[in-house]
Amino acid sequence: MVTYSRSVFYYETDRMSIVHHSNYLRMFEEARLHYIEESSMDYHELEKLGVIIPVTGVELSYEKSLQYGDKFHVEVKMIKFNGVKMDFAYKLYIDGDDKPAVTGKTMHCFLDDATRMPIILKRKMPELYDSLKALVEE
Amino acid sequence: MVTYSRSVFYYETDRMSIVHHSNYLRMFEEARLHYIEESSMDYHELEKLGVIIPVTGVELSYEKSLQYGDKFHVEVKMIKFNGVKMDFAYKLYIDGDDKPAVTGKTMHCFLDDATRMPIILKRKMPELYDSLKALVEE
Amino acid sequence: MVTYSRSVFYYETDRMSIVHHSNYLRMFEEARLHYIEESSMDYHELEKLGVIIPVTGVELSYEKSLQYGDKFHVEVKMIKFNGVKMDFAYKLYIDGDDKPAVTGKTMHCFLDDATRMPIILKRKMPELYDSLKALVEE
Amino acid sequence: MVTYSRSVFYYETDRMSIVHHSNYLRMFEEARLHYIEESSMDYHELEKLGVIIPVTGVELSYEKSLQYGDKFHVEVKMIKFNGVKMDFAYKLYIDGDDKPAVTGKTMHCFLDDATRMPIILKRKMPELYDSLKALVEE
Repeated sequence: MVTYSRSVFYYETDRMSIVHHSNYLRMFEEARLHYIEESSMDYHELEKLGVIIPVTGVELSYEKSLQYGDKFHVEVKMIKFNGVKMDFAYKLYIDGDDKPAVTGKTMHCFLDDATRMPIILKRKMPELYDSLKALVEE
Repeated sequence: MVTYSRSVFYYETDRMSIVHHSNYLRMFEEARLHYIEESSMDYHELEKLGVIIPVTGVELSYEKSLQYGDKFHVEVKMIKFNGVKMDFAYKLYIDGDDKPAVTGKTMHCFLDDATRMPIILKRKMPELYDSLKALVEE
Repeated sequence: MVTYSRSVFYYETDRMSIVHHSNYLRMFEEARLHYIEESSMDYHELEKLGVIIPVTGVELSYEKSLQYGDKFHVEVKMIKFNGVKMDFAYKLYIDGDDKPAVTGKTMHCFLDDATRMPIILKRKMPELYDSLKALVEE
Repeated sequence: MVTYSRSVFYYETDRMSIVHHSNYLRMFEEARLHYIEESSMDYHELEKLGVIIPVTGVELSYEKSLQYGDKFHVEVKMIKFNGVKMDFAYKLYIDGDDKPAVTGKTMHCFLDDATRMPIILKRKMPELYDSLKALVEE
């Protein structure tokens, strides 16, 4: 698990004075890419190798609204990896809170950037496969 | 069911040259508010009455990527309404395609804008309750 | 001059209940690309030829705020083109208003997508040069 | 002058693989609100007092494009304040660069949130007026 933190930006709010629900997907992306930087993957390196990792599905559950200036942190972990698909789970907390404000999951696959066809990592990049495999948490 | 359509804007794409996955939630919101306008609810009227309808959960599944300029349409319908909660389902198609590119669901509740506490529509706004009840599709 | 129109989306507002000032740049981009589609340029064609047209400068002046649901139109025209640089001017009106709510200008150049170096259109694409030259309005 | 820094987020890029030009206005807003926090103004306090500070104009000049992951910092200062209007100037640098990638200016006024009419700070909030007056840099 890796923790990512920042404050809510003004432009992330909408006319309900709360963070627009689409922006949590962006915060989760920031957290996920922070996780990837902290782990053995280098996202820029992956892109140079012609690998992209698009999102194939998302699930979010909103318990509490964030407002402008709220300090928050996201706990992110990889919960599934089989060389073809990869899932991440997220818990976003307002700093100081016991319960998460927003939880979610994102599902991903590995594609060849040029052909946009699936990549079998185990065959094409066995080292990356092994290091990702080691990151999976229950 | 109501259909909403437009083209993909340039700024909705990201460095993969496809629409950023968070933007489909915005397109679904456009479709949902279009649905609401077309139905018996007037969103501005609701807000004047002090009712807000935040999102409590979302689920999205991405089958195909949209690119800048793609013409698309969203089929949106209300699939649940019980006076406290309301769910919508979405199918987004690239014009001319048989299969949806993105499908999803959003879950909502009714809150009093001032107190941010749940509203029981059946009691507070029985007419609105009846007209919404009539909109639910399987 | 070309006119582009739509309504304000909910997610374009911020906690002041007005459209976030950055979003007018997005609306102007929509209007500009609509203009380009309507004219002799085909933006997708240009990108296939390896030409990109980034923004080098913007100026915006906000007279009146737009709110969720406001219907507006943007009058856009090309005010400068010399084969190296191209400027557009914009007037955004709330439908029915006499005076524009937001006015602005964007400045652009032509770059080779691969090298990101300037392109001299007159030499590289004389036909496009001529047709753009013909579009300039005072 | 106050300095604000972070890295470019993935979702801030567009299909040219560079930060979308509208997003620099958002980065400048982050920098400005950081400046305000660091100074004598408390933005939340201002909003509680019923004061909002909308943007009345912007000017941006783009010299160099930022890409996903680029670390940057923004130097922000208040360059004008007369109790009715307030201007800020910005220089955004990629970390390590001598020359700014993007420079700009934003113009603001003070409005009463309820009436949306201008506020004369010197009369309504003399203490805030004095502390803002002291912040102006050439």
